[in-house]
Amino acid sequence: MNTLEAIQKRRSIRNYAEEEITYDKLEELCNMGMAAPSAMNTRPWEFIIIKNKNMLKELSGLRKYWKVLSKAEAAILVAGTDDKYFQQNCAAATQNILLAATDMGIGNVWLGLYPNMDAVMKIKEMFGMPESVVPFSVVSLGYPSASVKNEVHIPDKKKIHIENWGKIE
Amino acid sequence: MNTLEAIQKRRSIRNYAEEEITYDKLEELCNMGMAAPSAMNTRPWEFIIIKNKNMLKELSGLRKYWKVLSKAEAAILVAGTDDKYFQQNCAAATQNILLAATDMGIGNVWLGLYPNMDAVMKIKEMFGMPESVVPFSVVSLGYPSASVKNEVHIPDKKKIHIENWGKIE
Repeated sequence: MNTLEAIQKRRSIRNYAEEEITYDKLEELCNMGMAAPSAMNTRPWEFIIIKNKNMLKELSGLRKYWKVLSKAEAAILVAGTDDKYFQQNCAAATQNILLAATDMGIGNVWLGLYPNMDAVMKIKEMFGMPESVVPFSVVSLGYPSASVKNEVHIPDKKKIHIENWGKIE
Repeated sequence: MNTLEAIQKRRSIRNYAEEEITYDKLEELCNMGMAAPSAMNTRPWEFIIIKNKNMLKELSGLRKYWKVLSKAEAAILVAGTDDKYFQQNCAAATQNILLAATDMGIGNVWLGLYPNMDAVMKIKEMFGMPESVVPFSVVSLGYPSASVKNEVHIPDKKKIHIENWGKIE
């Protein structure tokens, strides 16, 4: 799929078919995550691939909007080293994963985690993560159970300022 | 360009040809930015397109790694409303802009801004931005002056954990 098409067609997909996503594809998604830019090129991210259904079910109870994980075929947890640019680095990697999944026909939704520290601490414990690494986001994944609407995002011209705040088109 | 190819080929480009980037293309990049996901779908971002050479020169002096802006054909300033997910929302939009620019053959580099508050406050003043909106990142843009190396990012398998932190491939 063309890049601009993937950017425009990406949307939160929460209904999945019972169709396995192979580890190969999940690793490819992680590889795309780590192709993101990072401040000073520190590449501080880590990825946990989760296909175990019990683990997905346990995760699904951690936050209000995470129920979707109980029906997901897989998830990728994005984590990183907590420095000044932690959120920016991990968000860029997460966005790469969403776009790559969209391109590969895999439904996806970005589940917000950091800075909700209760869930952050529980996840560190669940996955045996070291002190220095902080969980950032969870991407829920599954092939869409129904055909995805062929909508694109409608841009909002009021958000684009030309040369100065006061001047919009 | 295919999405996975754009993700893999994106790299920081800091040498630009003297070739104008039209406002149409810069607006298209902003449109791609605002197709990013945002927490609770608040879509809190704003974009300022900067082509004015004096303004680019002034910006180039604001931070150590911003000299590149003095040779850039244009820049896009990404800003947003400062809530809990401010950095994540704006980083996803910034990453979309980088990938779209890569796809369109426009060299780009993400210049870190937030949370360096000295530069944040100066930029708010320079562009007449309201109190509620916080500058987040600047993307430097220009057609590459030399052929871009046809390298892809090499994934690091040690960063991928299977089901649990302790288990890597």
